[in-house]
Amino acid sequence: MIINIIGVGLLGGSFALALREKYPYLKIVGVDQSTVNQKIALAKGLVDEILPLEEALQKAELSVLATPVDSILQLLPHILDQIPAGRTVMDLGSTKEAICQIADTHPKRAQFVAVHPMAGTENSGPGAAFRELLPGKNVIICDAFKSHPDSSALVEALLRDAGMKIHYMTPAEHDLHLAYVSHLSHISSFALGLTVLVKEKDEKTIFDMASTGFSSTVRLAKSSPAMWAPIFDQNKENVSKALADYIDLLQRFKQAIDSQDIPQSMDFMVKANEIGRILSGIEKK
Amino acid sequence: MIINIIGVGLLGGSFALALREKYPYLKIVGVDQSTVNQKIALAKGLVDEILPLEEALQKAELSVLATPVDSILQLLPHILDQIPAGRTVMDLGSTKEAICQIADTHPKRAQFVAVHPMAGTENSGPGAAFRELLPGKNVIICDAFKSHPDSSALVEALLRDAGMKIHYMTPAEHDLHLAYVSHLSHISSFALGLTVLVKEKDEKTIFDMASTGFSSTVRLAKSSPAMWAPIFDQNKENVSKALADYIDLLQRFKQAIDSQDIPQSMDFMVKANEIGRILSGIEKK
Repeated sequence: MIINIIGVGLLGGSFALALREKYPYLKIVGVDQSTVNQKIALAKGLVDEILPLEEALQKAELSVLATPVDSILQLLPHILDQIPAGRTVMDLGSTKEAICQIADTHPKRAQFVAVHPMAGTENSGPGAAFRELLPGKNVIICDAFKSHPDSSALVEALLRDAGMKIHYMTPAEHDLHLAYVSHLSHISSFALGLTVLVKEKDEKTIFDMASTGFSSTVRLAKSSPAMWAPIFDQNKENVSKALADYIDLLQRFKQAIDSQDIPQSMDFMVKANEIGRILSGIEKK
Repeated sequence: MIINIIGVGLLGGSFALALREKYPYLKIVGVDQSTVNQKIALAKGLVDEILPLEEALQKAELSVLATPVDSILQLLPHILDQIPAGRTVMDLGSTKEAICQIADTHPKRAQFVAVHPMAGTENSGPGAAFRELLPGKNVIICDAFKSHPDSSALVEALLRDAGMKIHYMTPAEHDLHLAYVSHLSHISSFALGLTVLVKEKDEKTIFDMASTGFSSTVRLAKSSPAMWAPIFDQNKENVSKALADYIDLLQRFKQAIDSQDIPQSMDFMVKANEIGRILSGIEKK
């Protein structure tokens, strides 16, 4: 079997590495507009061959669209136009409503499977890809009933063999939840990094005084702007609402500190502590 | 030599563990109002003996005040009243202005050294103490010139032997920088955790959809409210200003997303990316 990864970056490359573990005879071809990325992808063994898009689409049983989400929107109709009958295309985009809407208008909708793995790092590009990124993580498939059973079966087999746990939801549910659980945390981190940079002109001060706690909280501020700007744009209604909720809470926290209302500050923090219990996967009493 | 750790938690306990590596004949006595913490501290070997405060102060060459900062403010004058001539007290508090102001009014000011290690985790208590917390980290000493040379020499020897790099600044500088580089990141994380908890009533959704990026950004939301409420309160002017800057930036980011001003969003993120370079300690071109 031949699969084709369009956009051999962190996610596409890590998917390739996870699949190679279970599919020793799988051939992986790559499509990438960056010649540097092409070279890195070949040298790391993420792909066996680099091909032009049109040729890769003809060769592959499955095409995996792993570009930033603005490119997914542009490429998906074009790819569906071109792929032969019986072949499948899946995406790995961080938004789902706009992408599924575009797919829904296409006569070959059934050949598409809308996928989003709950995994990533602040790094990007094929150099950042690693085999352990996806195994053990959750993955969401949207509008699964709109995909041909054969396309769904192929994609789900690969995701499961890559060690992922599959969940199903609508694109609207996906984008709403992601706004809070992922997109908001990226914005909070970008804004934190920038606030500190604007205030602390002396880089050495930041470096000397930053603890591991600060590093952890601003880690996502290193993320790729080219990847995240279109995500925020495609999910702007949900992201805007999540940001409004966050800003409102920060203002109330500030008010509690300004007025020395320590019980109120304590109350915010005690409630926020609950997130630790949830993330540890420990059942509540 | 005998040292006395008052408040045998994450920081006090980790300091004890780091010192034991280099000072095999050091005797460490502990003071803690929690009987559970006393038992954990003894069982972990953080301290050799638990004593009442008054007795410990008489015995120890050096007393290390490692309680939350509200308790430091209350205890410090009382401790300075009681310690014999020639003995030293140091604190490990996350704020420095209020603590140094209290010390400055005391006739035995020279026996006090104001210290803050740039290290911590989201966990607290003696069970969270570990030997590797402090070695390799930066530590700040404030108003060093106000301490007796013998007191400074003792404290600095111990900090260096615990593997820490010493920096000097005024309490005002310390509290201003910490508001941005530490206190703000804790508030941003507490508020992020709480925003998601308020919106996502179904814990399983958070658990299923949270990636490692989200976990990293909300890690500090697990921090101890009893420790952080008095820090925010003692540093309220700086923290309030830092929060105002942060909220302002979030509002401008939101405005860029709402108006689909992608170049502006990109610009925020590209600038924020710079924090990664600084935290990696890589010199700018």
